[in-house]
Amino acid sequence: MKTKFTFLYPVLTIVIAVGFSSCMPSKEKGISKRIAALDKSSELIVQFAELEIEPTQLDLYLAFFKEEIQTSVNKEPGVLTLYSMADTDDPTKIRLMEVYANKEAYDAHIASPHFKKYKNGTLHMVKNLKLAPTKPILFAAKDY
Amino acid sequence: MKTKFTFLYPVLTIVIAVGFSSCMPSKEKGISKRIAALDKSSELIVQFAELEIEPTQLDLYLAFFKEEIQTSVNKEPGVLTLYSMADTDDPTKIRLMEVYANKEAYDAHIASPHFKKYKNGTLHMVKNLKLAPTKPILFAAKDY
Repeated sequence: MKTKFTFLYPVLTIVIAVGFSSCMPSKEKGISKRIAALDKSSELIVQFAELEIEPTQLDLYLAFFKEEIQTSVNKEPGVLTLYSMADTDDPTKIRLMEVYANKEAYDAHIASPHFKKYKNGTLHMVKNLKLAPTKPILFAAKDY
Repeated sequence: MKTKFTFLYPVLTIVIAVGFSSCMPSKEKGISKRIAALDKSSELIVQFAELEIEPTQLDLYLAFFKEEIQTSVNKEPGVLTLYSMADTDDPTKIRLMEVYANKEAYDAHIASPHFKKYKNGTLHMVKNLKLAPTKPILFAAKDY
């Protein structure tokens, strides 16, 4: 303990503690962040996709679909959210909620190699696709 | 510096630094958290609502709607996400994506005074309501 750097410990402790406290989980952190993001950015692109998948192709389709979702959110800074669900009474009816930072991010996503791999690989599996572009009203969520 | 507690500084520094590093923002933090939550909890309730609002009542409706969303996510531990949007080409067509921790959380939400206030206050403003219960496939999102 008796090194000449001992004097640094209290300084480090305070600096790190301040940083730590500012990122402690709080009940409303997720909510305020998202509301702040919406207020700042009228540029957000929010789109709903409704898909109907050929039942015999469902498992294969889902493998492509999940890989595409995970790669896009991991690799593309402007792909903010991809939430995918299947209707409770019909697993071939799939919904996707997509949030992009702006139009450029959306265009870059559509042009990405992983999106093209998904699109071309699943064209014959998709019986129906409906896209609904929307504007956000209010996004409220906890960090879960 | 020469107090008898000096020996605590290095310990504190390490403890706080470890805590700090575990909550540092990382590109994949939001993603992994949500995937982990999905893996752990097949209990999640995810529902889509599509509403059509009487055009002359839209502003008043949105006031009720936004208050209800914010109060629910702030006050109810089991209301995880309420994302609301309007169709780009028709602001009276509104979509809501709802995520609840489990069936009990959903039932508690429907029974809450703020939900009843919204529901009863807007009954005559809603021309059409479609609910679609779903099961999550994959939720991927950044913390934004």
